[in-house]
Amino acid sequence: MLEFASRLNGIKPSIAREMYKVIGKPGYISFASGAPSADTFPNREMAELAPAIYLERGNRVNAYGITEGDPELREMLRKRYIDHYHFGSREADELQIFTGAQQILDLTAKALLNEGDVVVVDEHSYSGAMTAFRAYGAKLVGVPMDDSGMIPEELEKVLKTEKKAKFIYLIPTFQNPMGISIPMERRKEIYDIAVAYDKIIFEDSPYFELRYSGDYIPAIKTLDTDGHVLFAGSLSKIMAPGLRIGFAIASRELLAKLTLGKQQQDLSSNPFAQQMAFRYLSKYDLDEHIAQCCDLYRKKRDVMLECLEKEIGSMAHFSHPEGGLFLWIYLPAGVSGNGLGTYLLEKKKLTTIPGSAYHAAGEDIPALRLNFSVPSIEEIHIGVKLLGEGMREYLDSV
Amino acid sequence: MLEFASRLNGIKPSIAREMYKVIGKPGYISFASGAPSADTFPNREMAELAPAIYLERGNRVNAYGITEGDPELREMLRKRYIDHYHFGSREADELQIFTGAQQILDLTAKALLNEGDVVVVDEHSYSGAMTAFRAYGAKLVGVPMDDSGMIPEELEKVLKTEKKAKFIYLIPTFQNPMGISIPMERRKEIYDIAVAYDKIIFEDSPYFELRYSGDYIPAIKTLDTDGHVLFAGSLSKIMAPGLRIGFAIASRELLAKLTLGKQQQDLSSNPFAQQMAFRYLSKYDLDEHIAQCCDLYRKKRDVMLECLEKEIGSMAHFSHPEGGLFLWIYLPAGVSGNGLGTYLLEKKKLTTIPGSAYHAAGEDIPALRLNFSVPSIEEIHIGVKLLGEGMREYLDSV
Repeated sequence: MLEFASRLNGIKPSIAREMYKVIGKPGYISFASGAPSADTFPNREMAELAPAIYLERGNRVNAYGITEGDPELREMLRKRYIDHYHFGSREADELQIFTGAQQILDLTAKALLNEGDVVVVDEHSYSGAMTAFRAYGAKLVGVPMDDSGMIPEELEKVLKTEKKAKFIYLIPTFQNPMGISIPMERRKEIYDIAVAYDKIIFEDSPYFELRYSGDYIPAIKTLDTDGHVLFAGSLSKIMAPGLRIGFAIASRELLAKLTLGKQQQDLSSNPFAQQMAFRYLSKYDLDEHIAQCCDLYRKKRDVMLECLEKEIGSMAHFSHPEGGLFLWIYLPAGVSGNGLGTYLLEKKKLTTIPGSAYHAAGEDIPALRLNFSVPSIEEIHIGVKLLGEGMREYLDSV
Repeated sequence: MLEFASRLNGIKPSIAREMYKVIGKPGYISFASGAPSADTFPNREMAELAPAIYLERGNRVNAYGITEGDPELREMLRKRYIDHYHFGSREADELQIFTGAQQILDLTAKALLNEGDVVVVDEHSYSGAMTAFRAYGAKLVGVPMDDSGMIPEELEKVLKTEKKAKFIYLIPTFQNPMGISIPMERRKEIYDIAVAYDKIIFEDSPYFELRYSGDYIPAIKTLDTDGHVLFAGSLSKIMAPGLRIGFAIASRELLAKLTLGKQQQDLSSNPFAQQMAFRYLSKYDLDEHIAQCCDLYRKKRDVMLECLEKEIGSMAHFSHPEGGLFLWIYLPAGVSGNGLGTYLLEKKKLTTIPGSAYHAAGEDIPALRLNFSVPSIEEIHIGVKLLGEGMREYLDSV
C-alpha cells in the first residue's frame, strides 16, 4: 500500500547500526560511540540555572522561538569566535543557531542540491553527513586522503571532472572517523582550489576545541574573504549533545536559505536549551570546562595508544590523533573491516565501527574506527586486549 | 556565486511575514498570531521540576537522545490516547516523538513525495504545511470546502483526476485557518474515500483538546483499521510550544521511514524537554490544565464574536468556531483580503492574516484569519473596533 519516495531508497541501515544496538549492554565493551563522556556534562550547574530561566523568562522560552536563534546566545557565540578564533566578523557573515550541527548538514543539502548534484567528501567521512546529502539526491565523490587529510591535487582532479560538484564537505580538525587534521598549509591550498572552482566549503568542526597535544590550527573559515566557507560549530562535544545546539557562521545569503528550510523542519530550535547555554556560558568559564574535558580525554587517548602499541602494534598501524574522540586502525591490505568488526562483536563482545560505514562509496575497507571518549580507562585496557586477541585470531583464520 | 536548489524557488515570503514583523510592537494590536497565550504556560511548575531532571537524569537528558523519543513520554502519551480518545492501540501502530508537529509534516513529505507528486489539501489550509510539502516538489491541489470543511464529493473528483496524489492533508478539528470542524458523518465519508483510493490521510490535530462549546468529535484515526491514517498531535497548544514536542500515531512501517529522515535532520528531539513533559504529565492533571486554558480562550472567543457581530455584522460574515485559536472572516465577493489586510496594518495598526496566505494556489481571496488566543480582552474590544472602522473605510474606497 505505502509507496515511499525514491530519495530514501539508497539509505540502508549500515553495519554501524548493529554495533550501536549493543552499546551499554552489560558484558559488552564499546569503542563504537560517537558521543562525549557523560562525566563531562555540567548537570549540577544546569540544575542550578534552570529554575530562574523558567521564572524570569518562562513566557519567552516556552513560546515559539526565533528561527534564527536566541539573540543573546547568537551574540555571545559570535563574540567568542571573533575574540578566540578570529573569524565571524566579516560584514556579510552572521552566526545562526540550529538544532545540532546535524540540522546544518541537512539544510545545506536542502538549500544547495538538485537531484544528481555532487558533494565532494573525504574518502572516509562522517556517515551522518553523507546520508543527509544522499537523501537530497546527491552523488558523493570521495577524494583520496593521506595522513594529513584530503590531498589537494586529488581534490583538483575531482573538481575538474565533476561539473555538477556543489560543495566540498570537510572536517579539517580531528576528523571523524580518522582523528587526523589538515595542516594549515594544506588548508590554504584547499581553500584556494575551492575559490578557483567557485565551490562552497562546508567546514564541519565539532571537535577542534578538544585538543590534547600539538599546536592549534586556525579554521579554514579564517581564510575566507568572500563567503566561500560555511563553518559549522556545536556545543554537543564541549557542553552536552542533549542541548541539540549547533551553529553556523556563514554568509547572510546562504543562511537566509537555511532559515527558510528550517521553518519547514522545526520552526525554531528549543528556546529553553538556547537560554540555558547562554546563561551557562555567561556564568561559567567555558575554556576552563573545555580544559577539564581535555584532561580526561588526553588520559584516555594516551592509554588507548599505549595499549594499541602493545597489543596490535605488530599487526596494524593506527592514527595518533592530537584531539577529538576517535582514532583509526589501518588493517593490512585485503582484510575485511566488516569481517573483523563482526568477529570482535560476536566472539569478543567488543564493538568498533568498521571502515565501510565511513567510506564514500560504502566499500568494505581494511579499517576500523575506535572511540576513546566514552569507555573508562579500565575498559580501554580490557577492550584493546580483546581487540588484539580478536585481530590475531581473525587474521590467522583468513 | 551561490546557486541554490530549485526546490526552494517556489517558496516566497508570504504577506503573513509582513504581519508577523510587527507582532508585539508597541502601538499595534495583533490578531495575526498562531500561538497559544503565554498566560497558559506552566512556568512555575516547570521551574520546580527542572533541577531534579538534571540531578537525577543529567547523564541521559544531556546525552544524545533516542531518535524515536523518550520511552517514558511515548508510553504515557500512548496510554492517554488509548484511554481518552480510543485510538493508538492497533498492533501495527505506534507513537513517536518529533521536534514539533511541524517536523512530522516535513518528514512525511520527505518519506512519501517524489518531485511532482500531489498532496490534496483543504482549499484553505495551514501555510506551514503547504510550504513544507512544496519544498519536496509537491504540487498542491485544494479541495473546495463548505462550513463543515472539505466536501467529500469534491475530494473524490480530485482523486479521480489526480493520479499522482500521495496523501490527503486535513486539520479536521478547529481547522487552521478557518476554525471550523468536520462532523463525524463527513469524517467517515472522507475516510472511506481515502481507503477506496488507497491514499494516506495526514490528520493534523494540534487544537482538538481546546473545545469551548459543542460536542467532542472523535478523530478520523479512530476509524482507521489498516494504517491509512497518520495522526499528528502536539503539546504546543496545551502546554508550551517552546518544548518543540509533537507526536505521531501511525503505522510502524510509515514511522520507520520518518525516523530515517529524522536521523538526518536532528538525530533526536531535545531529551530534557521530553523528560520535562513526562514529569509534568505525571505530576499534574493535564485535563485540569486544559480546562483552564479553555476557560480563558472561551471568554476571548465569546468577546470577539460579540464584538464582530456589532462592528462588522452588516459587512461580512464569519465562522463561529467551537474551539481552537482562529476564526475566519468571509469578506464580500471580490474584496481583496491582501488589500484589506494591508490597509488595516498601515492605517489602523491592526494585524490580521489575509486569506491568500492559506490559499492552496496562493490567490488573493476575500478573507482574513483572526486569532483570539493571544490578544487580551481589552485588545479584542479595541482591535475589532479598528477592524470595523478599517473595513468600512476600505469597502467604501474600492
